[in-house]
Amino acid sequence: MARSYAFRGTHQAGIVTPAQDRLHFAAFDVTTESRDDLVALLTAWTEAAERMTKGEGAGPIGPTQGASNLPPDDTGEAIGLPPSGLTITFGFGPGLFRSEDGKDRFGLAAKQPAALKTLPHFPGDMLEPTRSGGDLCVQACADDPQVAVHAIRNLARIAFGTASVRWSQLGFGRTSTTSVDQDTPRNLFGFKDGTQNVKAEEKDDLSEHVWVADGDDPKAAWLTGGSYLVARRINMRIEVWDRQALEDQESFVGRTKDTGAPLSGGTEFTKPDFDMPGHDGPVIPDDSHVRLVHPDFNGGVRMLRRGYNFVDGSNDLGVLNAGLFFLAYVRNPDTHFVPLQTKMAAHDAMMEYLQVTGSALFAVPPGTGPGEYVGQALFEA
Amino acid sequence: MARSYAFRGTHQAGIVTPAQDRLHFAAFDVTTESRDDLVALLTAWTEAAERMTKGEGAGPIGPTQGASNLPPDDTGEAIGLPPSGLTITFGFGPGLFRSEDGKDRFGLAAKQPAALKTLPHFPGDMLEPTRSGGDLCVQACADDPQVAVHAIRNLARIAFGTASVRWSQLGFGRTSTTSVDQDTPRNLFGFKDGTQNVKAEEKDDLSEHVWVADGDDPKAAWLTGGSYLVARRINMRIEVWDRQALEDQESFVGRTKDTGAPLSGGTEFTKPDFDMPGHDGPVIPDDSHVRLVHPDFNGGVRMLRRGYNFVDGSNDLGVLNAGLFFLAYVRNPDTHFVPLQTKMAAHDAMMEYLQVTGSALFAVPPGTGPGEYVGQALFEA
Repeated sequence: MARSYAFRGTHQAGIVTPAQDRLHFAAFDVTTESRDDLVALLTAWTEAAERMTKGEGAGPIGPTQGASNLPPDDTGEAIGLPPSGLTITFGFGPGLFRSEDGKDRFGLAAKQPAALKTLPHFPGDMLEPTRSGGDLCVQACADDPQVAVHAIRNLARIAFGTASVRWSQLGFGRTSTTSVDQDTPRNLFGFKDGTQNVKAEEKDDLSEHVWVADGDDPKAAWLTGGSYLVARRINMRIEVWDRQALEDQESFVGRTKDTGAPLSGGTEFTKPDFDMPGHDGPVIPDDSHVRLVHPDFNGGVRMLRRGYNFVDGSNDLGVLNAGLFFLAYVRNPDTHFVPLQTKMAAHDAMMEYLQVTGSALFAVPPGTGPGEYVGQALFEA
Repeated sequence: MARSYAFRGTHQAGIVTPAQDRLHFAAFDVTTESRDDLVALLTAWTEAAERMTKGEGAGPIGPTQGASNLPPDDTGEAIGLPPSGLTITFGFGPGLFRSEDGKDRFGLAAKQPAALKTLPHFPGDMLEPTRSGGDLCVQACADDPQVAVHAIRNLARIAFGTASVRWSQLGFGRTSTTSVDQDTPRNLFGFKDGTQNVKAEEKDDLSEHVWVADGDDPKAAWLTGGSYLVARRINMRIEVWDRQALEDQESFVGRTKDTGAPLSGGTEFTKPDFDMPGHDGPVIPDDSHVRLVHPDFNGGVRMLRRGYNFVDGSNDLGVLNAGLFFLAYVRNPDTHFVPLQTKMAAHDAMMEYLQVTGSALFAVPPGTGPGEYVGQALFEA
């Protein structure tokens, strides 16, 4: 598709932007000790991202022009492809502010947001270090996976010598709607996912639950208008799930598999009736996913999810290495993610079929203004 | 897209079918010792494949109907999705005929095709056992990756107890054209790939180079009208490639990066002039890829390629685990693949940037007739 989104704006693109179908996400380790090199990288990334979201090459010369005795400044696999709705969204991990031993790597420690720290260990976490953490992240979403891959690959190329890929993840199909115009897609449990998502049209909810507001964190004024990104690689035990009875699957989720309606009846968007009695307790069980994570039982808290289905081959036991790459944007992970995840990990019936293999948290700076580089306020304010 | 292809026919679909954009490929180990179980699996797979290629569920009941106290006979993630051009293509590995210690596992050893054996070790092969081999394979291609994943996942579900996934591979973007109506896509070196591919419209070349003919192998008459499928997972050292000068990249390939024209001039489909002199030897170098694999220097041999770009995250060295999942259909691997690959591995300038991490060979039975199961002639003729 030829649709394109501006890179610069009040907020970064790729958050409330209508969720594109394909994802390539990468976390980077910064390998330099120089603050100037880091700023130069963010400047170069900003320029490249702005170009690529317009459907242009990563560099001003492009993949096939310029001196033939030099490497091209674009790798070429997206030649002739339209912008494909590409968005590129950058985030900063805790390690950018302080190293694990507490060192102020780039003179940014005083501005580290209080909520930006390694997420706690939750029950069900079986984290692989090579799929977790990172000093920087880049989320590339597009309608064409070749365009998303091209974006990450070129940003990694530009980072050579300053930052290297720590881990990366492809998502082949969105599991979220971020606009009322989008149909709710299905995750690999076969259920609609994201029905209750915060959507672009819900401006008040975005302000309340997604965007960091002025005064939220006095040390991190630079993050105002930004957000936090929680990334969790959630493997699904799909072979075991597939052997569960339909009514069990539905009772774990709290919704029907067919239409996604709550088990209390109605259609997908009908409000669940958590008090409706069933044969044995409420018709929407106490340990069902929809009940446990519902705002009514969580202080009204909502998230903007932007997850993707993934399949990364299979493991040595002959089962697919597959699941949901969970991405959620929240105003504060301490209020909008950690409590919910703690509760879910302890009580959610679905947890038996989940295993979290990757985890990371990033602060996502606000949009990049004209002439600025991404995150500039962190370095200069 | 709503296009759909019939599962049954003279040849299996998914070979000359216009190459769809997305791939999920899986190799299976047969875990039963019972020939009847194996036949039952192929029968069940045939029925499920025929249904799914019509856009129906994997089983007759579907994902949300039937008894609520039983698992559904479809996993549901493709509910509401169109057929998306899904094709499902089955193949038989050498291990189906004889185990590694020579045992005739299912009474099929006498019918093993002479050319169906583990491919030789080539220079540049760094094969991972968990990405190589397999008794059975399934290639699922579709316009929507969710549909391809759904197909493999349900076939794996059906196989539970009889066969288990040995390895599987997603491909996010086709690198082949199998029809004159398709544009030539680009691989992750940024170059057009598959310009010289055998296409569906070239009936004589298909007969000469792709389909096994009557009398090709007296022991394997059951394979007449079928083909051999060579699967090779080729990692590209893309970070190193990206630091090569444009003219070097082009000299390795023997074509321009921009239009894909041979370095001797013209357009993408202009016949290369291998005798045209350059500054230092022929303008299309002796060790260029296009020259080494060209039919003119290989006894006229051609293949039908059906490869896909892949990115499977990154490795511990901070580089993308990415490349080309090479799939090629040939009439006989001993004449149409092994000599070419031997020559390429020894002389091709591009080999410096390639590392083969997976390898497998399968015999692909002919199309499945009405009322038959796939490969029936092998078991009953």
